[in-house]
Amino acid sequence: MGLLKEFDKGQHAGNDLHSFAAELYPICRSITGNGLRRTLTMIQNRIPLQIFEVPSGTQVFDWTVPKEWNIRDAYIKDTSGNRIVDFQQCNLHVLNYSVPVRAAMPLAELKSHLFTLPEHPDWIPYRTSYYKPDWGFCLSHKQMLGLTDGIYEVCIDSTLEDGHLTYGECYLPGKSKAEVLISAHVCHPSLANDNLSGLAVATFLAQFLSKHDLRYSYRVLFIPGTIGAITWLAQNSEAVCHIRHGLVLTGIGDSGGFHYKRSRCGNAEIDRATAHVLGHCGEPSEVLEFSPYGYDERQYCSPGFNLSVGCLMRSVWGTFPEYHTSADNLDFIQPRQLARSLRLCVSIFDVLEDNRSYLNQNPYCEPQLGKRNLYRSTGGDSFDKEITARLWVLNLSDGEHSLLDIAERSGLTFAAIRDAAGLLYENGLLTEITGPRISTPGRK
Amino acid sequence: MGLLKEFDKGQHAGNDLHSFAAELYPICRSITGNGLRRTLTMIQNRIPLQIFEVPSGTQVFDWTVPKEWNIRDAYIKDTSGNRIVDFQQCNLHVLNYSVPVRAAMPLAELKSHLFTLPEHPDWIPYRTSYYKPDWGFCLSHKQMLGLTDGIYEVCIDSTLEDGHLTYGECYLPGKSKAEVLISAHVCHPSLANDNLSGLAVATFLAQFLSKHDLRYSYRVLFIPGTIGAITWLAQNSEAVCHIRHGLVLTGIGDSGGFHYKRSRCGNAEIDRATAHVLGHCGEPSEVLEFSPYGYDERQYCSPGFNLSVGCLMRSVWGTFPEYHTSADNLDFIQPRQLARSLRLCVSIFDVLEDNRSYLNQNPYCEPQLGKRNLYRSTGGDSFDKEITARLWVLNLSDGEHSLLDIAERSGLTFAAIRDAAGLLYENGLLTEITGPRISTPGRK
Amino acid sequence: MGLLKEFDKGQHAGNDLHSFAAELYPICRSITGNGLRRTLTMIQNRIPLQIFEVPSGTQVFDWTVPKEWNIRDAYIKDTSGNRIVDFQQCNLHVLNYSVPVRAAMPLAELKSHLFTLPEHPDWIPYRTSYYKPDWGFCLSHKQMLGLTDGIYEVCIDSTLEDGHLTYGECYLPGKSKAEVLISAHVCHPSLANDNLSGLAVATFLAQFLSKHDLRYSYRVLFIPGTIGAITWLAQNSEAVCHIRHGLVLTGIGDSGGFHYKRSRCGNAEIDRATAHVLGHCGEPSEVLEFSPYGYDERQYCSPGFNLSVGCLMRSVWGTFPEYHTSADNLDFIQPRQLARSLRLCVSIFDVLEDNRSYLNQNPYCEPQLGKRNLYRSTGGDSFDKEITARLWVLNLSDGEHSLLDIAERSGLTFAAIRDAAGLLYENGLLTEITGPRISTPGRK
Repeated sequence: MGLLKEFDKGQHAGNDLHSFAAELYPICRSITGNGLRRTLTMIQNRIPLQIFEVPSGTQVFDWTVPKEWNIRDAYIKDTSGNRIVDFQQCNLHVLNYSVPVRAAMPLAELKSHLFTLPEHPDWIPYRTSYYKPDWGFCLSHKQMLGLTDGIYEVCIDSTLEDGHLTYGECYLPGKSKAEVLISAHVCHPSLANDNLSGLAVATFLAQFLSKHDLRYSYRVLFIPGTIGAITWLAQNSEAVCHIRHGLVLTGIGDSGGFHYKRSRCGNAEIDRATAHVLGHCGEPSEVLEFSPYGYDERQYCSPGFNLSVGCLMRSVWGTFPEYHTSADNLDFIQPRQLARSLRLCVSIFDVLEDNRSYLNQNPYCEPQLGKRNLYRSTGGDSFDKEITARLWVLNLSDGEHSLLDIAERSGLTFAAIRDAAGLLYENGLLTEITGPRISTPGRK
Repeated sequence: MGLLKEFDKGQHAGNDLHSFAAELYPICRSITGNGLRRTLTMIQNRIPLQIFEVPSGTQVFDWTVPKEWNIRDAYIKDTSGNRIVDFQQCNLHVLNYSVPVRAAMPLAELKSHLFTLPEHPDWIPYRTSYYKPDWGFCLSHKQMLGLTDGIYEVCIDSTLEDGHLTYGECYLPGKSKAEVLISAHVCHPSLANDNLSGLAVATFLAQFLSKHDLRYSYRVLFIPGTIGAITWLAQNSEAVCHIRHGLVLTGIGDSGGFHYKRSRCGNAEIDRATAHVLGHCGEPSEVLEFSPYGYDERQYCSPGFNLSVGCLMRSVWGTFPEYHTSADNLDFIQPRQLARSLRLCVSIFDVLEDNRSYLNQNPYCEPQLGKRNLYRSTGGDSFDKEITARLWVLNLSDGEHSLLDIAERSGLTFAAIRDAAGLLYENGLLTEITGPRISTPGRK
Repeated sequence: MGLLKEFDKGQHAGNDLHSFAAELYPICRSITGNGLRRTLTMIQNRIPLQIFEVPSGTQVFDWTVPKEWNIRDAYIKDTSGNRIVDFQQCNLHVLNYSVPVRAAMPLAELKSHLFTLPEHPDWIPYRTSYYKPDWGFCLSHKQMLGLTDGIYEVCIDSTLEDGHLTYGECYLPGKSKAEVLISAHVCHPSLANDNLSGLAVATFLAQFLSKHDLRYSYRVLFIPGTIGAITWLAQNSEAVCHIRHGLVLTGIGDSGGFHYKRSRCGNAEIDRATAHVLGHCGEPSEVLEFSPYGYDERQYCSPGFNLSVGCLMRSVWGTFPEYHTSADNLDFIQPRQLARSLRLCVSIFDVLEDNRSYLNQNPYCEPQLGKRNLYRSTGGDSFDKEITARLWVLNLSDGEHSLLDIAERSGLTFAAIRDAAGLLYENGLLTEITGPRISTPGRK
C-alpha cells in the first residue's frame, strides 16, 4: 500500500528529468534510424529496456514498416559557399525523412522545398514526409526573406534503405499478469516538450516502479509515433490481452495545467482514477472527452482494441504556438513541471495499485469503533476526516464498491479512503474481496 | 444519399408555399364538410392524395364520428336590415359547428351567443363547438361595444346531418415498408399559421419526396384535428405497425424560432435527428419535453400506441396573441419562414434516410488513409473537419453506433459524418450493417 | 385518499407541540435511566406506546447494552459552601453518564473535569461520556474564568449499575403489513431542538395517524440515539423485514429551512416523495446526499440493512452555534416551525399512502373526456391544471409509472395528480394495478 508515499520519501527535484531531456535533445530522431537507436540506448542505461528491431517491409495491419532513414549532413550553401542553412546547427532544418539530394538551383526553384512560419518569423518549423518521397529544408521566415537571387547548392546526405524500425520496451512484472501500459513516442528530433518531456518522465517512472513491489505488471513503451504503436500492437497480441489500463504521456513539461483525454470508453478505471487524482492535485486541470485524433491513444483506442488508455498532457498539442517549432526547446520545459508530472503519474498508479474492494464484516449497524480506539483521529480529538473516511468505507464496503467508488462518492481523497480501509482491515473489520475485480466502468 | 443536397438543387423561395396557403385561406373548413373536401381536392391537384370518407356515427375507439357540418351563409342584421356581422366577409364570424338558427332577438339575448376578445378589441376570435350543440357569432370586441339596443335578426344557414368525416392520405412507397408519418390538421378555417402553414409545407414536402428514391415509405396525413387522428388510428391498424418515425407539423410559417416537442419516449430517433438538425440549423430553436396536451401527437403518443412522433412548430400554439384569432392571417406567415421550415423538414428526413450503421473493415489501429489519398481534405491541405469526420466514423463504426450516434458524439454535422462514411465506404474501408437497425433510443 | 386533506381539517397551531416540548424540557434524559423512562411515560399518556426494557449486558450486534445511569444530584461547592455549579439548576451542568464522585480538590485539579465553550462564553456545553468511565461538569466559560483558587467540593450523586435500556414503540397497523418507520431519539437532556422537536412532532404524528385508516402500518420509535437504534434493529429482525420507507426526525423546530438527507440508496420512494413535497412546500429547502455520519439513519442505512430511511431536519446538526449547548432551549424552537414540520411529515406520508399505479382503460388515443364532463375544470372554464393533470395521468398510466412518477415528470403536485387519478378512476377510465408495487427506485 502506498506507491505515492514511497515516492514522496525520495528526492525528485526535476533537475534530473530536465538534464536527461537535455542529453537527448541534440539527437536527430525519426521514426526509424540511428538517432532513434541512440536514444533508446541512452534510456537503456537507466532502466531495463529491451530493444526490438522490425525489418522494413513488415506488414503491420494496414501499414508497412517503412525503409530506414539515416542522415549524416545537410545544408544549403550560397554562391559564396557559405552554409546558410546547416543541419549540424539544428536538425529541424531538414525535412524529416528527406530523400537524398545533391543539386544546385536558383532561388525560385529552391523555394518550393523551403518551409517557414510567417506568423513566427524567428522560429524554424518541424516538418516530416514519411510516406511521400520528398526533400526540403525548414528555416526561419526572416532568414528566407533575406535570401537573394542566385544559384544555391543543396545537399541532403541521407539514406532511405531497407533496414529496421526500432522500439524499446521496459517490462516490470508485478504480482498479476494484468498490465498497465505507459506509452511515449520517441520519434521527434530536437523538440523538448513534444516529446522529450514524456520520454524522460516515462523513463524515471519506470526507474521508480522497478524498485517497488507492484500489483500490476507495467509495460513502458518507447516507440515511434503512429507506425511504432501500430507495429507494437500488430506484433504483441499476447501482451495486448493483458492490458487493463494505460496512459499515453506527451507534452508534460511545459508551464500549462494538466489535460487528461479520456479513453474511448470514457469511464474506464484509468479515466476515473486520473480524474480523481487531478481533482485533488491542487493544480489547474481539465478532463477532455475522447476524440479519435491525437497521439497513440488513436491506435490503442481503435475499435478492434478499444483499450482503456487515456492521454496525459499539460498544454494540448496544437494549441500552443511553440508546438512543432524550434521554440519547443529546453527552455520551454521546466524541471518543476516535469517533477510534478512525474509525481502525478505516480499518484494515478497509486490509485490503480490500491483500488481494491472490501467487505464489511459487521454489516448490521456500525461496528463500535470506540472500543477499538478507532473513533478518535490520530491527528487530534475532533471528529474529522479520518473518522468520516472510516464510516464511508464501512458503509460502502458491501461488495459493490471499490475504494475508488467510495472516494468518488464521499468526496474524500483516495489516499484517505485507502488509509481508512487499511486501518479497518488491520482491526479485522474488513476482508478483501478477491476473485474477479468488481469495479466496472460507469459504476457509481 | 443526400435528400437535402437534392433539395438544395431546386428553387424553394417560399412564394409558392405562401401562394398555396393564400388559395386555401378563404375556405371555411371544419372537422367535416365541404370546405374540408374542397381543401383536400386542392391538395390532390398537387400530390397523389387518396381521399377517404368515414360515415357519421362510426365508432372510433372512445369517440364517434360526428354528423357532417356544412354552412352556406350566416349573418346578424340590425334593425335596418344591414348585415353587421357577415359570414361572407369572414368565416371566423360564425361559431364553427353552429347548429342552424333563424331568429330575431334583443341585444341582451343575442349577447350570450357572441364571442369577442376584450384584450384585442380589433380581432375576431376563432371558436368551435363540435360536440355540444350550440350556435354563436364571433366578432371584434370594438364592434360589439358599438351595438345598440334593438331587435337583431340572426341567421345561420348551416346543416348538421349524417354524412362523413373526410381525410386525405398521400402514401409514398420507399424501399422499406417502414414508414415515416407526417401529419397536418386541415380543420381550421381562415387561419394562416394554424394550420395552413403546416398543410402547405406538408404538401410541398410530399411533392418533393415523391420525386426521389426513398429508403422509408412516407405517409402524409391531412386530417381534421383530434377526431381525424383518432379516426385514422382506429381504421389503419396495419399502417400504424409500420410507423417508425413521425412529425406533426403545425404553426411553422410565423417569424418565430423553431420549437420541437419530443415524442413521449423522449429520445426516439426522430427526437435525436430533429434536435441534431435544429442544433446545426443556424436559427434560434428550442427542444421541448413531451407533454400530453398539444396537437395530434396527443393521439399518436397515447400509451397504447406510443409512436415515435414529435411535433415541429415555430411559435408554440397558445403562446402568441394572434393564435386562434383573425390576426393569424396571411400577413402573419412569411414566404421565407415557410421555405426554411420546408427545408428543415427535408434536413430531418435527410438524417433519417441516411442514418445507417457501418462496420470498420480495419478495426485494429487506424487504416493508412494517406496511401488512399484520404488524409488530405478536398477543400484544402490543412488538417480539418473532413479528416476528423473520417477518423470519427472509423473509430465508432464498431456495430454499436449509427451515423447519428457518431454525429452526436463528435459534435460534427450529420452531413459531414455521412459524407465521410460515404467516402470510406467507396474506398472499401466500411461495410454497411444490414439486418435489424441497431440504433436504439437512448443510446449514446 | 387524502391524509393531508384530513390533517388540514384540524387545528395544528403549534402551541400544543411547543407546550409538550416544554413539559419534557426539564427532565434529565440519557441513553438509559429514569429520565428516559419518565419521558416515555409522558409520551404514553398521548399515544399507544409500548415500552421495552433491555437488560444491561445484552449483546446487540457489535455493541453491548451499557449499565443504567441515574442521577439524583450534582454540584460544585466553593470554600464558602455555596453551590456554584448546580445540577438542580440545569441538568447540562453534569457530564452525562458521569460516574459517581465525592471529593474535595484544588481548582487546578478540578479544571481537568470542567468543560466550557470559549467561543460562546455565556453558554453551557452538552457533553457525554457513555463508554469511557469519567466524570465532569459543564459550565459557562465566563463562570469558569471567575473561579478563584481554593479547595472545591464536588459531588455527583449518580449510579451506574446493571439495569436496562428503555425504548418506546408505537405501532399503528394499516391495511398492509408493509411499514413506514419514524424514528426520534429521546436521550438528550434539556435540549429543545435536538431533539424535543423531533420527539414532539413524532408524538403528534402518531396521534394523528392513529385516527385514520392507513394503507401502510406505521412504527414510531422513541429510542436513545445510536445504542437504541442498534438495540432495536438487533431485537426486531421480523419488523425490519416489513420496513419499506422511513424517516429519522431531528432538529425540526428551529427557524431554519428544511433539509432532507437522502437514504443510502439515494433514490428510494421516500427520497423522491420527500424531495417532491419539499419542492412544492413553499419554504426554503435543500436535499442533501447521504453520508454515513449523522443520526440513526447511520444504523438503518448500514450496508447489512440498507433500509430506505432518510433524515428530515431544519437546520443541520453541527452547523448552528446553539447545537449541543444550553442555547438550544425552548426559545430556540418555535410553535409555527413545529407545526409546519408536522404538516410536512403528513405531506410526505400523504404521498406514500396514495402513491399507486393505474392502468388507462382506453390506452388507444385519448378517451373523450368531454362526454364525461371531464374536459372542463371544476374551478373555472379555462383549460387549466386540472385537465392537464388528467391528461398526464391518462398518458402515463401504462403500468410503468406510479402517481409519483407522473407528478415528477409533469411538474405538477402529487395532490393534483392524485386527485386527477381519483376522478378518472371514478369515471371508469382507470383501474388500479394491484400485486407487487411497480415503482422502483430510480425509475423516471
